[in-house]
Amino acid sequence: MHRTLSVASSPVRDLLALTSRPEVISFAGGLPAPELFDLDGLRTAYDTALRDQSVLQYAPTEGNPALRALVSSRLTRRGLPTSDVLITTGSQQALALVATALLEPGAVVAVEEPTYLAALQCFQMTGARVVPVASDADGLDPESLRSVLATEKLSMLYLVPTFANPTGRTLSASRRAEIAELASAHGFWVVEDDPYGELRYRGAAVAPLASISDRTIYLGSFSKIGAPGMRLGWLRAPVDLLRALVIVKQAADLHTSTVDQAAAAEYLKHNDLDAHVARLCVEYGARRDAMIAALPHTVPDGTTWSDPDGGMFVWLRLPGDVDSAELLKKALTHEVAFVPGAPFFATSPDHATFRMSFTTNTPAEIEEGMVRLAKVLR
Amino acid sequence: MHRTLSVASSPVRDLLALTSRPEVISFAGGLPAPELFDLDGLRTAYDTALRDQSVLQYAPTEGNPALRALVSSRLTRRGLPTSDVLITTGSQQALALVATALLEPGAVVAVEEPTYLAALQCFQMTGARVVPVASDADGLDPESLRSVLATEKLSMLYLVPTFANPTGRTLSASRRAEIAELASAHGFWVVEDDPYGELRYRGAAVAPLASISDRTIYLGSFSKIGAPGMRLGWLRAPVDLLRALVIVKQAADLHTSTVDQAAAAEYLKHNDLDAHVARLCVEYGARRDAMIAALPHTVPDGTTWSDPDGGMFVWLRLPGDVDSAELLKKALTHEVAFVPGAPFFATSPDHATFRMSFTTNTPAEIEEGMVRLAKVLR
Repeated sequence: MHRTLSVASSPVRDLLALTSRPEVISFAGGLPAPELFDLDGLRTAYDTALRDQSVLQYAPTEGNPALRALVSSRLTRRGLPTSDVLITTGSQQALALVATALLEPGAVVAVEEPTYLAALQCFQMTGARVVPVASDADGLDPESLRSVLATEKLSMLYLVPTFANPTGRTLSASRRAEIAELASAHGFWVVEDDPYGELRYRGAAVAPLASISDRTIYLGSFSKIGAPGMRLGWLRAPVDLLRALVIVKQAADLHTSTVDQAAAAEYLKHNDLDAHVARLCVEYGARRDAMIAALPHTVPDGTTWSDPDGGMFVWLRLPGDVDSAELLKKALTHEVAFVPGAPFFATSPDHATFRMSFTTNTPAEIEEGMVRLAKVLR
Repeated sequence: MHRTLSVASSPVRDLLALTSRPEVISFAGGLPAPELFDLDGLRTAYDTALRDQSVLQYAPTEGNPALRALVSSRLTRRGLPTSDVLITTGSQQALALVATALLEPGAVVAVEEPTYLAALQCFQMTGARVVPVASDADGLDPESLRSVLATEKLSMLYLVPTFANPTGRTLSASRRAEIAELASAHGFWVVEDDPYGELRYRGAAVAPLASISDRTIYLGSFSKIGAPGMRLGWLRAPVDLLRALVIVKQAADLHTSTVDQAAAAEYLKHNDLDAHVARLCVEYGARRDAMIAALPHTVPDGTTWSDPDGGMFVWLRLPGDVDSAELLKKALTHEVAFVPGAPFFATSPDHATFRMSFTTNTPAEIEEGMVRLAKVLR
């Protein structure tokens, strides 16, 4: 049986099943808040798109031309000059396409440690070898990357430089410049996964790696700023690679849903997505603040945590020799949940870590959840 | 650069660009007729689905439970007892998932020759070796499969047993039984790709291979009976394999569009898809008849063609030493088009073959197109 069949199902997904009981206040998810979706705007966009029977037909693999132009001009306006993108079935598909196109069995992929679980699954499925790069409060550590490069020939470096999953941390501008230089000197691709970048609650934006390095493949998504159920992502890459990825996508699913793409194009034409994102930032920022404010009286002394400027996650490390997976079982008896940190590590897990998401609970729910959590942790 | 990047883009897609001028009567496509889509029914289904914000959220990889139940009961009612399916982003994705899960580089896949182009691309992308099995008017020839099995250890046999692409032919019941026996004896998987099976214009249905062999992975699709733009397919397989394919799909795109799935479930609940398919069969049957009736005075003596009981395609072979790709250029100057047959062959192309689709033109357009084609071929 093929190697892929030995890749375990995501532990996060298995846990989500346990934490979805309505009486549980769950900080375990990585979901946007459904009550903040622009349901009416999107419903109207679908209805408008479905006036034309061509939205039900097969369509080009590259994606809906109007949507590609709208996404490209939006990226350009936000500081990343973009002439074209490939529309993907969520940015998870973009990641899978990149892995298929660029990784042979035995190829080496470096990842920030800890990192996004489903990226690890993608890379493992190609038979690539994943090597970790250390990170700290400023994101991936270029010194650690240099020492990896001293012994490894990298095909790719994968990272979420802005409001990372699971840490919530942002890679500093100076480190971005260092990584861009290393990519150019050593000839590896940088995969800049940026689903959270627009969800900034304080501070100034940091320019994307893709704006300073032409060795960068930039992945964006409608999932956190629009709605994940539509499964719409986009990929920006140098033109030769973009063309090659279109061929890989053709074999993967021919093209992304014509209906969802047309609805997204209608939505972007007739709605102010920036204003919607601003509303999200107000709500999510208040939720972030509620969680951070409660932490000092929730966790034991000696606990450390990230202090994210945006995104969805706080990353914590408990003092002493504890296993957060064991603590989760106890937390569930108190009807509160988080995600143990171990699965986010490519190699040596730190069992004292865990991830908390603040997006799907109101500040009041967060306060109540933190009271419950204090009973478990303190 | 990775092997996938050397896989050429589908020649059919490149040709479609040439044949899409409005003055061309094109028999080149493989598309359903857009004027026959149930636009109103589907538009209402989307609008109903979008009353609930949960259709915009992330969802389980396996697919919408209501849709899975509706598809399973429909398959069961049509003679294929089915307890569950995996919903895929079109049946092209199902094919890609199966290839990823079951094919290592160097694995051997047998395909009916000629066969579906994008399946060949999928298999080539995994690094598998594709070996052809001969076919005739009754579909894949079990004798040819036996001689392949004498020298090759097959991982998989891929075929479109009912109204095949590109030939339009249907595998006989007795041959299905022979293939099921060979699969069991030699331990290979049969991938039964069945996008056209419901489009039968005459004769009685032949039971699917999956109903007589538990070594069969059955792929179905909403694309030809509903609308391809929604990118909805389904995969039926033994439960262990189905579970493994869920993990592969999770890495591929997390899940298929929640919106499209919910709309399809609404549509199936409130509309009579069987009645819609019956209408399609009346229309497509008349188009088939128009093409077959015109062929004797369109093609030169000595030409052979398939006489399909359903589906979308007629497959032809011209007499003498001709190259249908050259004839296509001439045909385009007469504003008519078809698809040259060579790309549908895994190994040794027969350049005298070509494929004609009868679904997207009315009988009157087909008659006019055949008059133009006669000037090129006779």
